[in-house]
Amino acid sequence: MEGGQGSLKIAGPTIERTNFMEKTGNDTVKLALDEVKPLAEEALKRAGCNDENASAVAECIYQAERHGAHSHGLFRMPGYLASLNSGKVNGKASPKVSVSRPSVLSVDGDGGYAPLAHQHLAKPLADLAKQQGVAIGALTNTFHFAALWQEVELLAHEGVAAIACTAFKPALPPAGGTKPLYGTNPVAFAWPREGAEPMVFDQASAVMARGEVMIAAREGHTLPEGVGIGPDGNPTTDPNEILKGALLPFGGYKGASIALMVELLAGAMIGEQMSFEAAATDNNDGGPPRGGEFILAIAPGGAGPFNAAEQLFEQILTQDGTRLPGDGRRQKRASVAAAGVEIPNALYEKIAAI
Amino acid sequence: MEGGQGSLKIAGPTIERTNFMEKTGNDTVKLALDEVKPLAEEALKRAGCNDENASAVAECIYQAERHGAHSHGLFRMPGYLASLNSGKVNGKASPKVSVSRPSVLSVDGDGGYAPLAHQHLAKPLADLAKQQGVAIGALTNTFHFAALWQEVELLAHEGVAAIACTAFKPALPPAGGTKPLYGTNPVAFAWPREGAEPMVFDQASAVMARGEVMIAAREGHTLPEGVGIGPDGNPTTDPNEILKGALLPFGGYKGASIALMVELLAGAMIGEQMSFEAAATDNNDGGPPRGGEFILAIAPGGAGPFNAAEQLFEQILTQDGTRLPGDGRRQKRASVAAAGVEIPNALYEKIAAI
Repeated sequence: MEGGQGSLKIAGPTIERTNFMEKTGNDTVKLALDEVKPLAEEALKRAGCNDENASAVAECIYQAERHGAHSHGLFRMPGYLASLNSGKVNGKASPKVSVSRPSVLSVDGDGGYAPLAHQHLAKPLADLAKQQGVAIGALTNTFHFAALWQEVELLAHEGVAAIACTAFKPALPPAGGTKPLYGTNPVAFAWPREGAEPMVFDQASAVMARGEVMIAAREGHTLPEGVGIGPDGNPTTDPNEILKGALLPFGGYKGASIALMVELLAGAMIGEQMSFEAAATDNNDGGPPRGGEFILAIAPGGAGPFNAAEQLFEQILTQDGTRLPGDGRRQKRASVAAAGVEIPNALYEKIAAI
Repeated sequence: MEGGQGSLKIAGPTIERTNFMEKTGNDTVKLALDEVKPLAEEALKRAGCNDENASAVAECIYQAERHGAHSHGLFRMPGYLASLNSGKVNGKASPKVSVSRPSVLSVDGDGGYAPLAHQHLAKPLADLAKQQGVAIGALTNTFHFAALWQEVELLAHEGVAAIACTAFKPALPPAGGTKPLYGTNPVAFAWPREGAEPMVFDQASAVMARGEVMIAAREGHTLPEGVGIGPDGNPTTDPNEILKGALLPFGGYKGASIALMVELLAGAMIGEQMSFEAAATDNNDGGPPRGGEFILAIAPGGAGPFNAAEQLFEQILTQDGTRLPGDGRRQKRASVAAAGVEIPNALYEKIAAI
């Protein structure tokens, strides 16, 4: 967020709001946080989204930037736009929620991006879980390109605990292998708290999320040992080699087990593509492949579980150096809001040029 | 399994079957695999178990030994026996299964060991999951001292996918901390296969299971870097120091997240003790503390998910050096059956002396 207070960066012909932007002197553009959602929303609409879809995706991007999660923020916009432009993703999707089994809500995403489906799903899924004790949200025919903490947090705000997972395209080898087969396959978990924001974690099955590796490649950084292997199967610290080879699962074979479970739950179990199938059918336009998401909502049943959990959270926080998952992200809100969001000129121009 | 064909090791006054045992010359005793269950069962009965409870626990121990999982085999018998002797565990427990919510089966373990509760739970839980799409088995008032692959495998044999997790006593620090708070908190997953044994993994949230560290301590081995820290919070390779300090989660903070989720699901969610609570109430007799287990059964609904999954399994197995989780364990059956089970004299005598 350093850099001079130079003249405003030109915004291109299609985007009006440039008044908060400033050129930083580092080939980057700085936006006020409030500029993020309108910038994304406008571009998504121009690429073919209707209001509802554009707003849902732009809100996701805004929330990512607001919490310092840049790899899921505006950095993803070129991918979102590319898949609308190629016709792969339906920008006017109307997700349909239906009860397919007594404790399962199936959601046909209508070929659109996942965030609108999440908005449609959260309340009915939480209600079903409260009635049944547990419920699955099985999301198919959708395109997921965002961080999963957002959907589990939506559910926690409805008063249920939630687990979500999704596959993508092959990035991780199976245990013992060297060729990508599983996606980075994130798993997110949220636990509601009374009088506080939910406890939330969201972690890729890879040591490092692919988005982070892409940013390192873009910025020319090397990565620590253990993040990935090159196309020859040997360890490397070069993000470009890793993107051509394979990321590695966290914790060795144990992370690979989790990635395998995610393939089965978010793919085979709900009748959607697994990562290797997505790779075979995707048009590689830079956006996400079609896939599914497995979401589990668990209703604690009364205040007991919440109260008991608070005692564990207290125990965590009595130790030096700890915090609850999700709180680190939230602590970034103030500084991001104050400093704004800095993105490369080239990225800004891609978004604004549409 | 090396050693001379010396004279039979004496068996102590209370155990009759000594005909397969042989002294190995290494202060160990070798048993035929078929001897394991009767040896365990007899000792459990003499320590106060009724037939049903003794058989369920002994079957677990036999299955562990049969699959080369020695850390959950006869090695656990002194702990099982100690908790029966101290009166902490009810050897005549009669687990009660009841429908507490439309998709939740609650099981009161009646203060007994978990294996009998699992036998009572598996069929009704699988049936409920098939009816509802998903169901929780919430096991409370029980003592879990075995490997979780056994209960998820029971469920997979009933035709459902299953996830199980349980807490224990503090062993792992929370992310950023150095003092034990979470148990080693295993998570197991099973996926049914037609015409083949289920795909099953079962992994501690620790880099290494506590049982393995205990075996290293007993046998005087050092452990690799990264397994644990001493009571001073510093890394060590000495298993005795690690047992006094803390084990480390696999994959750093990501494994700690999973351990935290397990505390919430197997503890707070179902109204049972979390690890830190179990430590406060346990009598430290060497057996397990009272705790709960969270089991999720998911019914794929028709053959589609099974068939789809087989394609993923094929993809895994086309890569050199891979195998499906669970198959490595099963491949040990033949050699264990041929070679028998070797345990220390001292362990044998503890079991036989009761």
